[in-house]
Amino acid sequence: MSNGPAIEKAIDYLNQHKARFREELFDFLRIASISAQSDHAPDVRRAAAWTRDRCAAAGLQSEIIETDGHPCVIAKAEPVPGRPRVMVYGHYDVQPEGERHLWHSGPFDPIVQDGKMICRGTADDKGQLFCAILAAEAWMKTAGALPVNVVFCLEGEEEIGSIHLKDVVEKHKERLACDYVLIHDTAQFGVDQPAVTVATKGLVYREVIITGPKKDLHSGVFGGTVANPGNELAKLIASFHDAEAKVSIPGFYERVKEMTAEELSMMNGLPYDEAAFLEDLGSPKIHGERGYGSMQRRWARPTLDVNGLFGGYMKEGASTIIPSFCGAKVSIRLVPDQRADEIGRLFEEVVRARVPDTVTVEIKDLTGCDPYLADTSSEGLRAAREALKIGFGKEPVLIREGGSLPILPMFKSILGADSLMLGYSQPNCNLHSLNEFLHIRDFEAGMRSTAAFFGLL
Amino acid sequence: MSNGPAIEKAIDYLNQHKARFREELFDFLRIASISAQSDHAPDVRRAAAWTRDRCAAAGLQSEIIETDGHPCVIAKAEPVPGRPRVMVYGHYDVQPEGERHLWHSGPFDPIVQDGKMICRGTADDKGQLFCAILAAEAWMKTAGALPVNVVFCLEGEEEIGSIHLKDVVEKHKERLACDYVLIHDTAQFGVDQPAVTVATKGLVYREVIITGPKKDLHSGVFGGTVANPGNELAKLIASFHDAEAKVSIPGFYERVKEMTAEELSMMNGLPYDEAAFLEDLGSPKIHGERGYGSMQRRWARPTLDVNGLFGGYMKEGASTIIPSFCGAKVSIRLVPDQRADEIGRLFEEVVRARVPDTVTVEIKDLTGCDPYLADTSSEGLRAAREALKIGFGKEPVLIREGGSLPILPMFKSILGADSLMLGYSQPNCNLHSLNEFLHIRDFEAGMRSTAAFFGLL
Repeated sequence: MSNGPAIEKAIDYLNQHKARFREELFDFLRIASISAQSDHAPDVRRAAAWTRDRCAAAGLQSEIIETDGHPCVIAKAEPVPGRPRVMVYGHYDVQPEGERHLWHSGPFDPIVQDGKMICRGTADDKGQLFCAILAAEAWMKTAGALPVNVVFCLEGEEEIGSIHLKDVVEKHKERLACDYVLIHDTAQFGVDQPAVTVATKGLVYREVIITGPKKDLHSGVFGGTVANPGNELAKLIASFHDAEAKVSIPGFYERVKEMTAEELSMMNGLPYDEAAFLEDLGSPKIHGERGYGSMQRRWARPTLDVNGLFGGYMKEGASTIIPSFCGAKVSIRLVPDQRADEIGRLFEEVVRARVPDTVTVEIKDLTGCDPYLADTSSEGLRAAREALKIGFGKEPVLIREGGSLPILPMFKSILGADSLMLGYSQPNCNLHSLNEFLHIRDFEAGMRSTAAFFGLL
Repeated sequence: MSNGPAIEKAIDYLNQHKARFREELFDFLRIASISAQSDHAPDVRRAAAWTRDRCAAAGLQSEIIETDGHPCVIAKAEPVPGRPRVMVYGHYDVQPEGERHLWHSGPFDPIVQDGKMICRGTADDKGQLFCAILAAEAWMKTAGALPVNVVFCLEGEEEIGSIHLKDVVEKHKERLACDYVLIHDTAQFGVDQPAVTVATKGLVYREVIITGPKKDLHSGVFGGTVANPGNELAKLIASFHDAEAKVSIPGFYERVKEMTAEELSMMNGLPYDEAAFLEDLGSPKIHGERGYGSMQRRWARPTLDVNGLFGGYMKEGASTIIPSFCGAKVSIRLVPDQRADEIGRLFEEVVRARVPDTVTVEIKDLTGCDPYLADTSSEGLRAAREALKIGFGKEPVLIREGGSLPILPMFKSILGADSLMLGYSQPNCNLHSLNEFLHIRDFEAGMRSTAAFFGLL
């Protein structure tokens, strides 16, 4: 570890300024950069400007890159010839807030409770990407330069499917050229168990809208004469699973790759407390594809879920109507080597085949991506494991991620680079839900780990 | 028809004064007695006073009965011992006006166009109830007395659920005692086809909420480990119907009474244009319980409909969550002799039996009422049919109503009286909608019919 003393200096810098960094993160979190909602577009832009300015303050050359949607921020240190090249990817946009009144504080009013920072975006991904900016600053302020070539590519459309990121990466391919992509947008295995994530799931996300009569009808006067879109939608959704909770789409499992014996044995060595898992989620019981355990289902089995239902009368009390239309948002999580385009096509085929001709069906393709599996024997992965040991004080494990990162296969194909996923949040951090949080100690261990990674690569 | 000459005199009186009656109705219509809107409470009271005064002018003893909400008007002729007793029910309150600028004239500025009186309340129910007041006046002015015992019970809360009507009927049970309740608040079968409505459907309305995890979960991270409330709700709803579109609830059809041969043959003789019906609704195809036609399904078969679906992410775009809960509003329309309490209980039993223990279920009882079927062989119904023939000059048909009128079983249980529904409006009179109207010829035929009914009973 030839960079040992320099890494120590960078880490000292981070430890000294951590109170200020937390205040800065809070400023960042207060910007309601919800990319899915068009009335929040000005907030997304404000978050981009904040990101650009903060990278510049860290000593990087930083600029906003316009797209046809929300902008990207690219920030780069002075090139160091001959050294490995790392591109840090992150996103400054966030999920919608959900039920505002159910947050402990406002969804965009960060607070600290029990050592946790609670706010939309703490874990996903503002708090995590900020660790990398701070790690870069630590090297700039203590060594005057970064020990490897680092370029940041921070987008504002991750929560809506990274619509324009591919364009940006293609257009700025030379500036973004790298050996590894470093991503802090996953979680550790659990409390006190840091991890490198080596695989992510793919995604097929569709909205299915079933329409019957051209307007809502009186359910008494017209009940029993025309098909009810709500009842028909329910029949369709019910047909997506069989009695063993397997997905009932012909050809669905054809390309599914089983985990290797080594992966399985590593997985089985990890602690898993089903009772605690259930208590944490609040579900009464485990439920999933027969023949597999929960951990394997999350990591390596494809799933199909309703994400939302809507239509007809949805407010308080009773309104006796046959709805003109009802819709469902449905997502399918894919595993290696399933392909999003193929599974999307199979899904649409069964929907069209199963919906009766008493109604019409519309299918909207909202987003999708392929699954990803990293090379577990690379130099980058070795450095990442060592860095986590320094930052967290504990040997990390290799894990898989149930979530999807569409950008990983895209980075691989355009930049030729493997992605290293060093996640600093916890699996129960309420991502995409209410009261999202990030532990302060993970935030701090995270910035130390990234600083160490830059030194170790 | 011993009263034949007297009936003729009453009808002559109505024909002579019809121009004046229309002007009086216009005064009544100009009062914006919208019961749902508290700033119109003074108008509702003015309409009550107008009704009381007009009944008094017709020669009836008339008074306003206070309630905790809008008042009722009770008006009674001098008792004629030994004669049948009729209670005329109606309501002087109206629906809100909707989009004011889309009315041909103002919503409360009555006009005549193409033989139609256009104004809020023409059909529902001021124009129709006024027919009965005028019929009573015709008898008083021509014969000096009514040929039967008549009492009017006219309420001001029908459009907000007849909140205090039951209290009034219970409290004034003796004054309102009757053999028949006469109601002019439905429609004819169509143009030139008068009708007596002999049945209304009952209603069971429940909200079913299925809850899984205590909060929304990331569908990637947690997919495949716990039951998804959206998928489980869909399976439940899908289970409510079998392949023949019959309701799959054990015991559901047990008390269903088939239509009589006379009703069936009358129904089959009525014009029904399926292509026009479908085009009007905009549905691609007819759908309903196998073994029955559309008309019979609407009139005499119970149905189960989703009225609304909600839960999870319902807005624009994609959000990848397993919803904490999803819910459905479900209504069941009942036919004689089904009972709302029994079917409600059977429904709740199958819901609880079919929802798996991987989620929890909550059922809310939002509203309900029993179905109603008049005795089609009664003296009152015979007189009603004959009266419509005199008033409209055409043999009426017996029809059923798909909607629910909770007051009918209430009158039956408190007063022991059957209801006779003689509707003078048309099915397309824009009730509860814009440009509500009543044909002048139906208004005039209506007052003649009611006058004849009093004489024939």
